[in-house]
Formats: sequence, C-alpha cells, structure tokens
Amino acid sequence: MSEHIDGRNLRSINTRKRLLAAGYDIFIEFGFQKATISQIIKKAKTGYGTAYIHFSGKDDLLIVLMDDVMNRFYEIAKMSFEPTSKQEAIDMITMQTRLFLENAIQEQAIMQVFMEAIRHSDKVQEKWIEIRESFVEQIAKDVAYAQKTGLARTDLDNYLVARNWFSLNESHLWDIVNQTNKHSVAEITHNITALYTGGLYY
Amino acid sequence: MSEHIDGRNLRSINTRKRLLAAGYDIFIEFGFQKATISQIIKKAKTGYGTAYIHFSGKDDLLIVLMDDVMNRFYEIAKMSFEPTSKQEAIDMITMQTRLFLENAIQEQAIMQVFMEAIRHSDKVQEKWIEIRESFVEQIAKDVAYAQKTGLARTDLDNYLVARNWFSLNESHLWDIVNQTNKHSVAEITHNITALYTGGLYY
Repeated sequence: MSEHIDGRNLRSINTRKRLLAAGYDIFIEFGFQKATISQIIKKAKTGYGTAYIHFSGKDDLLIVLMDDVMNRFYEIAKMSFEPTSKQEAIDMITMQTRLFLENAIQEQAIMQVFMEAIRHSDKVQEKWIEIRESFVEQIAKDVAYAQKTGLARTDLDNYLVARNWFSLNESHLWDIVNQTNKHSVAEITHNITALYTGGLYY
Repeated sequence: MSEHIDGRNLRSINTRKRLLAAGYDIFIEFGFQKATISQIIKKAKTGYGTAYIHFSGKDDLLIVLMDDVMNRFYEIAKMSFEPTSKQEAIDMITMQTRLFLENAIQEQAIMQVFMEAIRHSDKVQEKWIEIRESFVEQIAKDVAYAQKTGLARTDLDNYLVARNWFSLNESHLWDIVNQTNKHSVAEITHNITALYTGGLYY
C-alpha cells in the first residue's frame, strides 16, 4: 500500500519545512560554525525529539538546504541544449552562464554559509563533491551532443571538457559569493564563454 | 654597512635550514594538523628559544616551505614566452602545462600537506591567495604579449583570461595531489590547452 498523507504525516511534513526554514535563517544570521541546532529548534518551535526524527544534526540539515539551493543552479545547467550552429551554442551557453552567475548573487547569503560548511565539515564537503559530479555529468551530455552533431571537437574527452567548464564556473561562483570578484557578471560571462566555446567548437 | 656572514650568522642560517628540512619531513609524516612544533624542533636538534627566533609557529614555517615549493611551479610559469605564431604558442603552453602538472606529481606529498593547511589555517589560506595572485599576474603578462603581437583575441581582458587559465590548472593540480584525477597528465594537458588556446588565439 502506498503511503497516504493523513493528519500525522502532514504535521510531520510541516515540522520538517519549519526546521528547514529556521535553519536557513539561523545559518545566514550566525554562520555554519556558530549556529547551533538548539537555535534552529527554538526558532522552528518544535522539540528536540521531533527535530532529531528529521535531522541527525546541523550538517544534515544544511545538506538538505544545499541540495535545494543547488537544484536551482541545476535547473539552469539542464536547460534543453540542442544547438544547430556554433553561434546558437554560444548564445545558449552565454545565457546559461549568465543565469548561473546571477543566481550566485541571488543566493549569496546562503552560499556563503555553504562555503564555510564545505570548509569545516567533511560530510558537507563530500556532498559538495557529489553535487559537482552531477553538474559535470549533465554538462558532459551537452558536450557529447555537440560532438555527435559535428559542432564540437571530437578529439577532446567530453567528461574532461565538462569538468573544466564547471571548474571555470565554480571558481567565479565562489568569487561572487565572497564578493572578491573584480569583474561584473557580464564580463566574466563573456570571458569564460569565449574561451570555452572558442576552444571547443569548430 | 651591509650585513656580512660571520660565524654566528652562518650558524643561524644553518639552524633555519635544519628547521625547514625537519618541518618538511615532519609535516609529510604527520600532516599539518597533527604535526607539532616540538617534533620539528627535536628533529632539527635545536632549542625552543632558537627556533622561535626563526619561526613564530608551525603556520609560519609551513608558509616558508610553501613559498619555496611554489617557486618551483613559478619557474615554469615564468619561462620566456614570445611565440611568433599560434602553433608556437600552443607548443609552449602545452609544455608549460605538462611540466606544471608533472611537478604536482613530483611534490605530491608536501602539496597534500599544503592542501590540508590551506583548509585549516586562515594564515596559510591567505598566503595561498597571494601565491595564486602572483601566478595570475605572470600569466596576464603572457596573454598581453600575445594580444599585443596580434596572436590573441583583444576583446578579452588579459587579467580575467589569466585567472581562468590558472583556475583550470589549479583544479587539476589539486586533483593530482589528491590522486582523484581520472585522466593522465597527458590527457589533462591536451584538454585544457586545447580549450584555452583554441578560445584565446586567432
């Protein structure tokens, strides 16, 4: 029998949502290391026992938030990509890159927490590596498509190309999150897209 | 009057050298966090008072080692670069990239310590950012040269190009140090050089 949502399930789902929302706010206010699970529980107006049914600790809760936020980046990465010319590929990649980096500005506060958490929690770092891998695999499909349709160089390994492309995006992502970027999103987008598409496409 | 090297200075220089050599070995054996300054002092056969004249702590000593090791990478980055054609540029950049990544294999044990230290010490992380900046500035000169001589696209900011190129190299550097690289140095070199030179050069 499939699980159906009764009153009890609904309360449980709501508690989980409240814990996540509280975690989001508390992490942004105090940072990953200083935030405590007690603060989050208090803000979510629930008890310890109930909270621990949902999350084993703050690393755990943060990982769910990270998955959620990174999904919004992933939506951009997995936009349909079927260019019929080099110029179409350049236009699509330019748009994706711009959206990706603008999203970093949008999510700056929570991304800063993620950066701190990746640095200080092995569990969160592992999760980040897993997330990165899913982006690389998604990009690798796009590269393979462009290679198959004769638009892109076939002497380059599509997985390695994808990894390099994501590295470029990621380095600027963190720069933007840190506000250490010396260039605008438009300039960064132009620069990395030109290098990437110029190098990959015929 | 300029300082001359008398017996006392010579002893001091030798003590410093012994501390660095001892630090190198102890860090590789125990890692950055587990290594203690006492172990290093003992191995260097010197006293606390003398050691502290040279280094205020293990972060400080590690930073000198990092400077020293990274100088060997820097020697590669600052090789003379005056290509007269795109092909010459590709050949030179391919060689530099290969040497750079091979050097990462060579220095793998100490680089692993550096990676750990960058993660756990703000002082070391700051130093790493400073070192990265010096690489980017050196590369930016080469890019400017290629732009000035009409070989490279002038619509791209040379500093931003340099930063992107170093990012690509750095991401593979750490992959190699971690032994998480799924491709050989030859494959990585071919891939990143193709993207970079294909994107930048006419």
